[in-house]
Amino acid sequence: MQTTHRQWIYRQRPAATVGSEHYALREQPLEMALGAGEVLIEARYFSVDPYMRIGQSGKPTYDAEPHPLGVVQQGGVVAQVIASLDTAFAPGDWVRSYSGWQTHARVAASDLTPIDPGIAPVTTALGVLGMPGRTAWFGLTEAGRPHAGEVVVVSGAAGAVGSLVVQFAKRHGARVLAIAGGPDKCAWLRDVLHADWTLDYKAFSDADALGAAMKAMTGGVDVYFDNVGGMVTDAVIPLINRRARIVICGQISQYSGGLDAPDLGPRLLHHMLYQRATMQGILARDYVHRMDEMTRIVAPWVKAGEIVFEETVIDGFDQLPAALNSLFTGEHRGKLLVRA
Amino acid sequence: MQTTHRQWIYRQRPAATVGSEHYALREQPLEMALGAGEVLIEARYFSVDPYMRIGQSGKPTYDAEPHPLGVVQQGGVVAQVIASLDTAFAPGDWVRSYSGWQTHARVAASDLTPIDPGIAPVTTALGVLGMPGRTAWFGLTEAGRPHAGEVVVVSGAAGAVGSLVVQFAKRHGARVLAIAGGPDKCAWLRDVLHADWTLDYKAFSDADALGAAMKAMTGGVDVYFDNVGGMVTDAVIPLINRRARIVICGQISQYSGGLDAPDLGPRLLHHMLYQRATMQGILARDYVHRMDEMTRIVAPWVKAGEIVFEETVIDGFDQLPAALNSLFTGEHRGKLLVRA
Repeated sequence: MQTTHRQWIYRQRPAATVGSEHYALREQPLEMALGAGEVLIEARYFSVDPYMRIGQSGKPTYDAEPHPLGVVQQGGVVAQVIASLDTAFAPGDWVRSYSGWQTHARVAASDLTPIDPGIAPVTTALGVLGMPGRTAWFGLTEAGRPHAGEVVVVSGAAGAVGSLVVQFAKRHGARVLAIAGGPDKCAWLRDVLHADWTLDYKAFSDADALGAAMKAMTGGVDVYFDNVGGMVTDAVIPLINRRARIVICGQISQYSGGLDAPDLGPRLLHHMLYQRATMQGILARDYVHRMDEMTRIVAPWVKAGEIVFEETVIDGFDQLPAALNSLFTGEHRGKLLVRA
Repeated sequence: MQTTHRQWIYRQRPAATVGSEHYALREQPLEMALGAGEVLIEARYFSVDPYMRIGQSGKPTYDAEPHPLGVVQQGGVVAQVIASLDTAFAPGDWVRSYSGWQTHARVAASDLTPIDPGIAPVTTALGVLGMPGRTAWFGLTEAGRPHAGEVVVVSGAAGAVGSLVVQFAKRHGARVLAIAGGPDKCAWLRDVLHADWTLDYKAFSDADALGAAMKAMTGGVDVYFDNVGGMVTDAVIPLINRRARIVICGQISQYSGGLDAPDLGPRLLHHMLYQRATMQGILARDYVHRMDEMTRIVAPWVKAGEIVFEETVIDGFDQLPAALNSLFTGEHRGKLLVRA
């Protein structure tokens, strides 16, 4: 029986929201032939992440060139080995790969990371024990540097990274204000993740009103872990305390067009001066070589059930482009995955 | 003969540009009586600094409360002792004081810093060997951290702080782009301060055009020492290199009203993320305890004539409010002083 190899080809740069019109679905018979040291994998879960939309900007971003057109959309995947010409991998093994939006891939064994399903569900390799976990852990501990008793504000707090930052900050003894869109997310952040305070930014008409609510709750902000930018950041910056640390982890409010043609917002950098604050941009890739260090600390918490790693799973390879866009409409909670 | 004690009383908060209408000139007979440990000084030079306008904002800035109304305008002064009940000071001695905009002051000896006129002109105590020098030195070395060969961009480069940053950065082996307003300042920055490149921001209609010129000159920016904010900063941020350091020393373009009701500008913080850049606000007051350290390095350069410390001196106590506003109209070069 012939297996079909399906691929989402990124074919056109979106100007605003991204959708299936920017991709082409290609189907072909699966090529089973392998070379020495190669492994054939079948994807089980696809990661859908905000950085993907950054790479679609027409301007230089974290790479000098945008994601190329005419090739498979890049991205992280949890897969199973179906054939192997490398002794380190056998059929049935679970692996993490960066083979992107395709049902199968022929990959060099050296590009695969084994997943031990005994530690945690395999999907955590794309979440708390993968890139989002690394981003949350090192972004908070290296750039945010929270002290016990300090106020940590997290924007995008119900997302894959934000929901972990909330929990990691609580473990550091910080008092945490979690900001998210909508009362359901806020209830979850309060009741399940134990944020000290929550705010639904959608309930406020402008940054001044949101800031006044933040100030009434926290008094001031020592660490701001920003996933969102825009109005939420406008509200936080005037509230920073002396020596505050601002971590720029994401600016998701700007991704659907604002990277190419920037939005306008208030000029607030003078507050950096008054408070002698520090702002630092962080990227997950800078901490890849320290995954072992993070895993040694976080994996035991995951195994013991002490970390909530919420997942929103969308079924069907066909749903990938729509799933990517849904990151920016804000309906999911925790890590967004597409199941093959 | 009775001496007149003249004082500029800050009496009304400016909404936009500041001028004499926000001050009242008070004259009274000079009170000569001194207590134990007190010194009577007569001001010779008054410092006029951008931070003074920050303190006139109606919102919290570097202090929780704005400069109080109904009192002498605060500020640094170079003065001479005319009477003393402290053994450390004798009539004729030069001192630095924070006695503000008044011709005379009765000051505790512990609040005075002696000036040695043998090292350099006494006015340097308000410039290269005073607050602006400290700001330039520690802002650049501690927050900017330039390496030899890196590109350092300085905005407000012809000002008291900027003109020193240009020279200190050159001494660190950096290549320096000096940005100022007008061709005369640029010629001075190039010919006298030996900036590698200069740009007259007033010759550009928008940040994109200014940024294109910067990019053509420098290729990219490793350190941005910002005194100005606004359009110049909008042009620099998209050009930062990996691990760039942005020093927020001043935002002078915003001081005449923009601190109370912020201007709008493009949202550019996503560049911090791509380049894993750091932005840090600095204030001179944080380095007061390290003045000895800076003096040990910089004073020999000053004494040897290796540092250009340009001064613009306005004659007349009456001119103080107008001199303050002239900081924001950009006509002076180097340190702006008013001579009593």
